[in-house]
Amino acid sequence: MKYSQVTTENIRHLATICGQEHVFSGSAIHEDYKHDEMTIYGKFAPEVVVEVTSADQVPHVMRYAYERMIPVTPRGSGTGLCGGAVALYGGILLSLAKLDAVLEWDEENFTVTVEPGVLLMKLAEEAIKRDLMYPPDPGEKSATIGGNVMTNAGGMRAIKYGVTRDYVLGMTVVLPDGSVIELGGKVVKNSSGYSLKDLLIGSEGTLGIVTKLVLKLIPLPPFSMSLLVPFDDLKLCFDTVPKIIQSGTGPTAVEFMQRQVIEAAEEYLALHFPHKSAQAYLLLTFDGRSEREIEHTYQRAAEICLENGATDVFISDTEERQASIWKARGAFLEAIKTSTSDMDECDVVIPRTLLSEYMRFVDALEHKYAVRIRSFGHAGDGNLHIYLCRDDLDSRIWQEKRLEIMEELYSLATKLGGQISGEHGVGHAKQAYLKTSLGPEALYLMKGIKKVFDPQNILNPGKVCFSEKAFDPSEAAI
Amino acid sequence: MKYSQVTTENIRHLATICGQEHVFSGSAIHEDYKHDEMTIYGKFAPEVVVEVTSADQVPHVMRYAYERMIPVTPRGSGTGLCGGAVALYGGILLSLAKLDAVLEWDEENFTVTVEPGVLLMKLAEEAIKRDLMYPPDPGEKSATIGGNVMTNAGGMRAIKYGVTRDYVLGMTVVLPDGSVIELGGKVVKNSSGYSLKDLLIGSEGTLGIVTKLVLKLIPLPPFSMSLLVPFDDLKLCFDTVPKIIQSGTGPTAVEFMQRQVIEAAEEYLALHFPHKSAQAYLLLTFDGRSEREIEHTYQRAAEICLENGATDVFISDTEERQASIWKARGAFLEAIKTSTSDMDECDVVIPRTLLSEYMRFVDALEHKYAVRIRSFGHAGDGNLHIYLCRDDLDSRIWQEKRLEIMEELYSLATKLGGQISGEHGVGHAKQAYLKTSLGPEALYLMKGIKKVFDPQNILNPGKVCFSEKAFDPSEAAI
Repeated sequence: MKYSQVTTENIRHLATICGQEHVFSGSAIHEDYKHDEMTIYGKFAPEVVVEVTSADQVPHVMRYAYERMIPVTPRGSGTGLCGGAVALYGGILLSLAKLDAVLEWDEENFTVTVEPGVLLMKLAEEAIKRDLMYPPDPGEKSATIGGNVMTNAGGMRAIKYGVTRDYVLGMTVVLPDGSVIELGGKVVKNSSGYSLKDLLIGSEGTLGIVTKLVLKLIPLPPFSMSLLVPFDDLKLCFDTVPKIIQSGTGPTAVEFMQRQVIEAAEEYLALHFPHKSAQAYLLLTFDGRSEREIEHTYQRAAEICLENGATDVFISDTEERQASIWKARGAFLEAIKTSTSDMDECDVVIPRTLLSEYMRFVDALEHKYAVRIRSFGHAGDGNLHIYLCRDDLDSRIWQEKRLEIMEELYSLATKLGGQISGEHGVGHAKQAYLKTSLGPEALYLMKGIKKVFDPQNILNPGKVCFSEKAFDPSEAAI
Repeated sequence: MKYSQVTTENIRHLATICGQEHVFSGSAIHEDYKHDEMTIYGKFAPEVVVEVTSADQVPHVMRYAYERMIPVTPRGSGTGLCGGAVALYGGILLSLAKLDAVLEWDEENFTVTVEPGVLLMKLAEEAIKRDLMYPPDPGEKSATIGGNVMTNAGGMRAIKYGVTRDYVLGMTVVLPDGSVIELGGKVVKNSSGYSLKDLLIGSEGTLGIVTKLVLKLIPLPPFSMSLLVPFDDLKLCFDTVPKIIQSGTGPTAVEFMQRQVIEAAEEYLALHFPHKSAQAYLLLTFDGRSEREIEHTYQRAAEICLENGATDVFISDTEERQASIWKARGAFLEAIKTSTSDMDECDVVIPRTLLSEYMRFVDALEHKYAVRIRSFGHAGDGNLHIYLCRDDLDSRIWQEKRLEIMEELYSLATKLGGQISGEHGVGHAKQAYLKTSLGPEALYLMKGIKKVFDPQNILNPGKVCFSEKAFDPSEAAI
């Protein structure tokens, strides 16, 4: 690739588009812009950071970059876990974080129109004030909605309400050459040509930059309650999941957690978890219009758990009790991160009936490689978050072991009919595994699509599956 | 386009792949294969009809056709409404109707794996026997599931359960050159590269041929009941819809119907509809695990209707009463078709709050052009089915008027932020309208994607938005 270096003239011109105070270069670039949540995948300095404060600026920036072969990496909050929002090839890091206006609440069409920089937590809170719900609920609430759309984020409530894809009705997209297209709209059905909108969702900023989103809302279910269900082992816990789903009780969340992860969260938060003597837990949530409406439902779910080997069922029907459990659940990632010197993670998704087989394999890897592995995840979706902890391993051994373990984790997921990523995406860190999983024909199609949208490969180059070679983390410019 | 003519040698070779008894040419080609449900869009004779009886045959047929530049038009039951499954350029009509095995019910992962020729009604029935539901419920039950996927069919239950797209977890696809790819699987989340699966869904057989589908199922809600709600006018009827949705009562269906359409259905079916003196009706359905579970819900919905101008609410809680109403609803299309000499239809989708404005416009068009127009549709989704009836208009005047009316209908839909098709697709008949609605940039991207998948343009050529010129029905080879 023959990208142009960013010149002082380029920087001056970008300042005329976005304002001097929103353009940073050299030592003025904050360290945070060089990585996402996973520093293990390397740090990469952009040549210039440009903060967009108006959607109109984006086409100008893109046209300017396109004409000059300057790579552009779009970025929201930088909370990704695969290095998707880092400037692998320098160039412009285009921050959309300040493009954060909620443009319209349409309470009759159940839509909200937002700019991409709106934070997930802000969107969720403001919806609740209007008795509405934006259902996708990924763990990372400080992510932007634009980032969520670009990774097709899932989260805790996917089992009942689906993933981000299911809530994006329309979008305004700036293409790499600066042209602007509108896709979809305030419509809940659409069979009008290829679904470019669905192609953009999950494309990790490699096809276009979203500057406006029309999102679907649903009426807020005002009541919710959770069941914390201890099991003596993980197999019993996983085997109960299909039975709960089959019962038609319609849980909002079916999370699984192991004792060690709960302990780490307790320590991290200095918080007391209601129960922690069991090996494994299911955390179920039910929502509805009133306690009365759902009491039969959650009682039936509790019975199913007890019939299938749960040692107890703890009902959390007050907001406080629920909050403490979910606070712990929300802190798992940070708690594991804090517990170790460095970590790597994977986010495979497999058929949910194979979870217990897969987790047995994970346990075996922990012993085989003598690397501490911690896991939690969305049992209802077959989506696991698996963390390898470096602890006191020396650098070379850690590097070797984690690559070998990852290789094994992804191979088995593929063999079981699963996929590389359930909700975190591929970024630059996971693309070797994705390529293996896709096979040459699907890879060829993705590369062809990328070329149609971005013939000069200037938009977020080197991500998803478009690196020239398999990414080798040992070469990362740390 | 320089397609090859099908030779007797080609036909002989196709017979070696699929069996002599499954290859038809010349006068042996049944008249039905020359059109879909809308003969108004012309009849087009394929040069050879090839019935596939095993998925393995499809790559062989495609490779053979690809190497020889023979166009291939895939086809299910031929129940489409836009000419999507007709062989515009002759060549091979590839019938997938006999590829109709249900391969696996996986009751623990809530999936069913099917071949594309399985009929929607068969799939629905067999799911029910297992206490499962395949939620998409388009009016045309004799459509194949493959056809449903290729148009992203919607139907009556979309407001609660979503459309076909939401239930396709995985697929096996034969590409135009005969290579085979697997997309997705028995997984409910996926963020592993561009969603080629979502690109295929709704692509109307122009990108690849689906030979296997993994579909998502849900536990069957065993109880359902319907409310038939009369209103004095259509505006009151439409204005009630957002209030029902906002109430969180979660209806499974929110259909609207006008008196004249009900009368046509009564006549067509020789059946007595429970009520028909009102101008407009909402038909609501609620489902759940028991009557007790949903009685508060539907009572609340009934109250909302009465508070908003409904003149009455008829509760149909027996299977018989429900069946008679839904039987009438299911016959609307056929009833209108039978009532007139010829018809044209449109399937726009608009923001649901604009339905009453749009329908006022439709009424005005009826008077302006003196063409009888009948409508019904999915009020909850903002998706209208509008039928222009030729009645005794002479051929030239009918042709002129219907094209002018369609132009006006699509223009207004686009202006209101709607889309050309909610669920029927584009085929060859609607592509001029789609092109106008898309604009040049989105059209360029769709053409580029088509070229990546099908560089020789042999798969279902001339559909969606890939005709060399706007389709002129007056040139159709009738």
